[in-house]
Amino acid sequence: MDKQNYFMSVAIKEAKKGITSLHGGPFGAVIVKDNIIIARAHNCVVKNNDPTSHGEMNAIRKASKKLKTFDLSGCVIYTTGEPCPMCLGAILWANISKVYYGANYNDTEMIGFRDKKFSEFDSKDFVVELDRDKVLELYNEYNNIKERTSY
Amino acid sequence: MDKQNYFMSVAIKEAKKGITSLHGGPFGAVIVKDNIIIARAHNCVVKNNDPTSHGEMNAIRKASKKLKTFDLSGCVIYTTGEPCPMCLGAILWANISKVYYGANYNDTEMIGFRDKKFSEFDSKDFVVELDRDKVLELYNEYNNIKERTSY
Repeated sequence: MDKQNYFMSVAIKEAKKGITSLHGGPFGAVIVKDNIIIARAHNCVVKNNDPTSHGEMNAIRKASKKLKTFDLSGCVIYTTGEPCPMCLGAILWANISKVYYGANYNDTEMIGFRDKKFSEFDSKDFVVELDRDKVLELYNEYNNIKERTSY
Repeated sequence: MDKQNYFMSVAIKEAKKGITSLHGGPFGAVIVKDNIIIARAHNCVVKNNDPTSHGEMNAIRKASKKLKTFDLSGCVIYTTGEPCPMCLGAILWANISKVYYGANYNDTEMIGFRDKKFSEFDSKDFVVELDRDKVLELYNEYNNIKERTSY
């Protein structure tokens, strides 16, 4: 078993821990930097009553806390399921450099999850503009703050 | 000022609180159910060293905690910036029924944020399949758990 398969096996083990405890779906994730595991986590949507508590999200939050930075450049993530749009977005914001997943959207749809549906979602009509002018004033205000960031 | 504009003004106020405290970008969000504010929050990526700590995410987590459920059906979200793919994904998982945003992706790009870039991101090559067979075994195991959910 090479290192990549090993890290995936740890993600699967995490997921198993989650499902036997009824914490949520069969999704575990492991974040690795320089071949060292920084964080491992599993889906806790049911346990935490938190729709954002996916395996990847929890692993990113743990890794950021551990490394004391919101920038996970140089990290790789191993996850049992192809990341949903929420998790892929989080992975991009965190500057993670690569994703290895086991089962794909079609597989995950077969066990009842909506990842595929959401990846094809058309947000027209669902997402509506309101008071743009007032928010542009806010953006201008932010633009004038010297210590501003863009993360 | 009608109710929608009022809720957006609360989201803007939240965002202002965040930027004056240097917690992160100019993004505030408010979750409303039956015309009552359930949760308000702002971006805390810098404050919390957490790349997932966007205004919408924080508001969803607060609302879920308050209502003691991962299912925010019947809730509406008001947010200063058009939700990034991560936040839109979270909004969908939470079953929120409508999104009102102030500034759009182009506006947010003008102040340096990558929401637009991520919304157009092509994950080919970035996201790679590994050990699918082993994860399918895990999925099968989950499928046999009586109390399983799909959130």
